[in-house]
Amino acid sequence: MRKDIESDMKRKDVEALIVLGDTTLANPDLAYVVGTNLARGGIYFKRANSQPLLLTSVLDLQNAKKGKVKTVSTFTDFGFEKLMVKHGQADAYPRLILKILKQYRVSGKVVIAGRNDLASGTKLVDRLRSLGVRITGDSSPTILEVARATKSTEELEEIREVGKRTTKVVEKVLDKLRSAKRRRGHLVLDGELATVGTVKRYISTQLAIQELTAPEGTIFAIGRSTADPHNGGVPSAKITERKLIVFDIFPQSESGYWFDLTRTFVIGRADRRAHRLFEAVQQAQDASLGVLKEGLPAQTAMSEACDVIERHGFKTVRDIFRGKIRKINSGFVHSLGHGVGLTIGERPYLSLQNKDPLTTGNVVTVEPGVYLPRYGGVRIEDTVLINSNGCECLSNTRKEFELS
Amino acid sequence: MRKDIESDMKRKDVEALIVLGDTTLANPDLAYVVGTNLARGGIYFKRANSQPLLLTSVLDLQNAKKGKVKTVSTFTDFGFEKLMVKHGQADAYPRLILKILKQYRVSGKVVIAGRNDLASGTKLVDRLRSLGVRITGDSSPTILEVARATKSTEELEEIREVGKRTTKVVEKVLDKLRSAKRRRGHLVLDGELATVGTVKRYISTQLAIQELTAPEGTIFAIGRSTADPHNGGVPSAKITERKLIVFDIFPQSESGYWFDLTRTFVIGRADRRAHRLFEAVQQAQDASLGVLKEGLPAQTAMSEACDVIERHGFKTVRDIFRGKIRKINSGFVHSLGHGVGLTIGERPYLSLQNKDPLTTGNVVTVEPGVYLPRYGGVRIEDTVLINSNGCECLSNTRKEFELS
Repeated sequence: MRKDIESDMKRKDVEALIVLGDTTLANPDLAYVVGTNLARGGIYFKRANSQPLLLTSVLDLQNAKKGKVKTVSTFTDFGFEKLMVKHGQADAYPRLILKILKQYRVSGKVVIAGRNDLASGTKLVDRLRSLGVRITGDSSPTILEVARATKSTEELEEIREVGKRTTKVVEKVLDKLRSAKRRRGHLVLDGELATVGTVKRYISTQLAIQELTAPEGTIFAIGRSTADPHNGGVPSAKITERKLIVFDIFPQSESGYWFDLTRTFVIGRADRRAHRLFEAVQQAQDASLGVLKEGLPAQTAMSEACDVIERHGFKTVRDIFRGKIRKINSGFVHSLGHGVGLTIGERPYLSLQNKDPLTTGNVVTVEPGVYLPRYGGVRIEDTVLINSNGCECLSNTRKEFELS
Repeated sequence: MRKDIESDMKRKDVEALIVLGDTTLANPDLAYVVGTNLARGGIYFKRANSQPLLLTSVLDLQNAKKGKVKTVSTFTDFGFEKLMVKHGQADAYPRLILKILKQYRVSGKVVIAGRNDLASGTKLVDRLRSLGVRITGDSSPTILEVARATKSTEELEEIREVGKRTTKVVEKVLDKLRSAKRRRGHLVLDGELATVGTVKRYISTQLAIQELTAPEGTIFAIGRSTADPHNGGVPSAKITERKLIVFDIFPQSESGYWFDLTRTFVIGRADRRAHRLFEAVQQAQDASLGVLKEGLPAQTAMSEACDVIERHGFKTVRDIFRGKIRKINSGFVHSLGHGVGLTIGERPYLSLQNKDPLTTGNVVTVEPGVYLPRYGGVRIEDTVLINSNGCECLSNTRKEFELS
């Protein structure tokens, strides 16, 4: 939570935290600390034990004032144009930061964060260091990674809302598929043989109705292509009975918050192998959901899923760490889950390497999957909130395997 | 263009360029060099005078092979997991980069680019420097800014396509507004009084039909709120005759490329002041479009627009640079335009400070605007391609001021 920033700065002996960028859109750290949209970005500045300051373009001033930072000023008010005239365009930006630091009498360690081009970022850091500023890098988990991993009540409200709307989209799509006519094993939608492309357009329309966007796209894959977890689906592929369909949707709302939900199903009847995959994955998810709670080392949730999947006779990534295999392209080939918030992949990660205990307010996906090359794959995913007793599922959609 | 990377590396005496990140989505530099989607990102490595190498997660390998880099390998193939065991999780990533650099016998300057958190980026750079790597920052225009500013034929095709679809959305929306019934000066859509919210939902649906997304939203503002160029529109505001409406749409297609288009209009008749604003802005845009061509200093295009707008009796940002005023909140308060490509704001910028000559293959917005606080604003924007004879408008939509 935002309030963790102060204590983490103290713990890391950081006197000033600067978060900057040229837009809040692709810069979740900046979006997080300012709590509003800034089309042209800005500079967030926080000295330890002081209230933060935000500098923005005059164009973003109105939006800036709607955010979390009480003291808002413009680049112009801080004399940015004058610095351009005096020091030249290239040096004006480091000079502006230097001016802020001097005004707040910062002499200790300074961390500069925010998603930015590393090549020009390195230039900026080197320049500020040459001007005497004690810039230091921040080890992972960074101050902002720690803060962002624990969601506030306000953030949870946003995520719940995205979850509700995402669930509506998924149900609409499943209803559409259920009610579609079938012609010799193929689905017919609006009088034509349905393809992945047809369904994806329907998904986009439903997302629009729910005022959601899917900046990273949506996975709707059928048949063999479900064996590749990142295959988005081949637009021309026909929607056919008895084939595995992986529908993985990860939309974002205007608030900036994301959600992540996956259902795997077949239309009509599934064959025995598909049932075996589904059962393994569903049991793995149940096992993980059963142990998730505050204090649990993240890796334990993943181990639970691996236990179940291995018991069903499939490989898992754990075999690599055990040195049993060198690569994996069959079985449970990825991690169990990841945090969700202002990005669709953040801390905490439910991976075998992550020993950190989970905390109340973490929002994570729980998405085991089993994939068999040249056959297909099954993945089931929900987004859940960790609390002191266990976890709460934020996506209330049934896991129906055979749509009839 | 991508081929400029080699010459720019040579000019800057850079022996190796590394572009990295954890996803291609919010990382246009990485997306650009790899030319494909990598959900988990990767490391692009290019030694001067050599073909590039791309390292990705095994999950992204199939997508990676569809991209521009011929030599693709996985983190696992480069022994990432082993490095984790040997050096610990925190040090494995710099060790992996070091391993690549050693394998390619790089001893000269190395630039690390790509949109990443600066705090952990600084940590990475410092660590690599401590391991003997000669990392250097890159001054703006960076190697990738230069390459990306000139679009290839393939990129232009993508942008033209987004432009075509964006134009379709705009025309659908204008048709809908034109054909809507009116009740005592208010627009009625689907039996109800239309609001900005109603229209925005219609816009979203049309975007979905055109397979476009609008990750930064859409501006549809009416009345006084048009005086603030970044006001997206108040959802509850009714759509009323005779009021200025600014409709600024900036969608992205699945290709990653964006487009930017603004129309300002009133439904029914506009008052005299609105006409004055519209004429000033339209003439300013015409003047800029008339001079834009290869070789023109970018600032000249902006000066042309300022000339026209000042002649119409409005202030411009030029007055700040001339020291006539300290701030500006009335008149032409922003720059003339910006590049469009894998982002919605990139080089070249058509600003008063930018003396660089334009080149064939630049794609820029031309968007003069005049804003009067407490009254409203007018902005007209097209996205154009610079060529040796002039410029080509990529958005073929009329500029109808009074919809009837």
